[in-house]
Amino acid sequence: MVSDRLNHVSFLIPISDSILQVEQKMRAQSDGNHPDLGAALDHLLDSGGKRVRPAVALLTGGILGADQEKLVTLGAAIELLHTATLVHDDLIDGALLRRGMVTLNARWSPAATVLTGDFIFARAAKLAAETDSVAVMRLFAETLAIIVNGELTQLFTSKGLASREDYYQRIYAKTASMFELCTAAAAILSPVDSQEVERMRGMGYNLGMAFQIMDDILDFTGEQATVGKPVASDLRQGLITLPALYYLEQNPGDAWMDAALSGKLFEDDKFARLVSNIRASGAIDASLKEAESYIDRAVETLLKQRECPQRQALLELANYIIQRQL
Amino acid sequence: MVSDRLNHVSFLIPISDSILQVEQKMRAQSDGNHPDLGAALDHLLDSGGKRVRPAVALLTGGILGADQEKLVTLGAAIELLHTATLVHDDLIDGALLRRGMVTLNARWSPAATVLTGDFIFARAAKLAAETDSVAVMRLFAETLAIIVNGELTQLFTSKGLASREDYYQRIYAKTASMFELCTAAAAILSPVDSQEVERMRGMGYNLGMAFQIMDDILDFTGEQATVGKPVASDLRQGLITLPALYYLEQNPGDAWMDAALSGKLFEDDKFARLVSNIRASGAIDASLKEAESYIDRAVETLLKQRECPQRQALLELANYIIQRQL
Repeated sequence: MVSDRLNHVSFLIPISDSILQVEQKMRAQSDGNHPDLGAALDHLLDSGGKRVRPAVALLTGGILGADQEKLVTLGAAIELLHTATLVHDDLIDGALLRRGMVTLNARWSPAATVLTGDFIFARAAKLAAETDSVAVMRLFAETLAIIVNGELTQLFTSKGLASREDYYQRIYAKTASMFELCTAAAAILSPVDSQEVERMRGMGYNLGMAFQIMDDILDFTGEQATVGKPVASDLRQGLITLPALYYLEQNPGDAWMDAALSGKLFEDDKFARLVSNIRASGAIDASLKEAESYIDRAVETLLKQRECPQRQALLELANYIIQRQL
Repeated sequence: MVSDRLNHVSFLIPISDSILQVEQKMRAQSDGNHPDLGAALDHLLDSGGKRVRPAVALLTGGILGADQEKLVTLGAAIELLHTATLVHDDLIDGALLRRGMVTLNARWSPAATVLTGDFIFARAAKLAAETDSVAVMRLFAETLAIIVNGELTQLFTSKGLASREDYYQRIYAKTASMFELCTAAAAILSPVDSQEVERMRGMGYNLGMAFQIMDDILDFTGEQATVGKPVASDLRQGLITLPALYYLEQNPGDAWMDAALSGKLFEDDKFARLVSNIRASGAIDASLKEAESYIDRAVETLLKQRECPQRQALLELANYIIQRQL
């Protein structure tokens, strides 16, 4: 089932065996624990995406000559960390669906959901420790702190804040920090110096920023059935993202936009027309250009690496980030 | 304030400076993050207990000659791990008070409480990584998995199970696993061999089992005002602990006990009389003897160590566990 979902993604070809090992390692983490935990973990991993994060780690480490077994362990640790944060996110948002599949909290009690998330954190930490690298462990723990602090800041900050600075900080914490972890940790496990680790961290940052900007674009341009949640779901909650920021900069004082950001645009038809207006404006295009410029910077770093199948695949992955429809 | 609370506990005398460093290190973990997080962390640490877990780690490491700075880091990591699990526990139980102080979830939203727990996990993991020991990191992650798996098992298992095996597994997961972490990790950070690490782990196990049995005894014998929660709170939820197990073994088929375990003893007066009967039976004494026998085994291990102020303090701590009123 996993291989069915993955085998048409070209960037996974040079790492298809490793990705399957990552899958097995993740699913084995519930062994010896309560059987319902295994069922929950399988369900979560079945609803998982294209394993972009482990792929970034595996390909980066592949280019730099990291030990394969440790890379697989790292990939599993990172995807589980990501999964654990999603479990708690969905609980907090009360989301019932993710990628068209039922979330854990839609079927389980909040108590079981909190604890399942905690259990997956624990297994992610255990796998991170199995890379035998204290530097990877520190980075791992730092990244979790950045992600959670970002979510708390979003929770505590009054909605309706239309600030670019706030937006970039938010998407760094939410997404780019994890991509940085993928590339920097893969580099740490490779025979390279600290400058190379920093370059790879920068590449991960650029991939991650582009990834989240594309998510925020798709939130406006996608259809509800494809995206798996209502169109413009962030704006519906008074949360501004890049397309809305561009639109607001082009249309300062737009009354509907102000109302949406203060959570006071309740009429569905007005909200739909605001979304239409944003789609029809140059805001989507400007946002896309910005995502592309992050990808350009990642590609620039990547092209300085030796030519190899993994480099080619990572170039395809970078391209996939800005081409994807979901 | 912390020192006021701690300075009358004799086992802390040889480590009073280190314990204050542990406090500072814990409170510094919110620096640079959202200010409300700092307030939450301070509140949680102010409501904290006597720092028994860091004390066990500091004293064990002190006997074995561990590096002081790493021990302080370990102590802070362990107490934060413990604190994070309590935050999620209180949320799950809907508890409004812990040790007579308001819980986080009594004042904050579930979302903020889940995330604050996650943040404290992240900082605990970061501190564990700062011990620079991959073995400590692994043990740390393993312990978290054991604790969470124990809570999930308790959640999924039907209440009313009157099994000693289940009880010992439960208190191992809940409490003794963390005490094992304190002693084994302190030994790992010391210049001793793996056999000594295992002996110290065994000592931690015995201290932890005794600690939880005493908690379960105090749940029956304490007054609500002192314990900070209703008397026999576990039995009220259909959860059996050692005193109730002994009582049931002495009074098989006791109708009120059966009703309590299946969650059907709703009348307050009957419940109070059942608690009275348990108190008046030999069950409390038998439980206390069992706690003492765990302490005896811990003391036996300890007496094989060199004589030093830390050994003396750990003997006092072992004694404190079975003497304490709360």
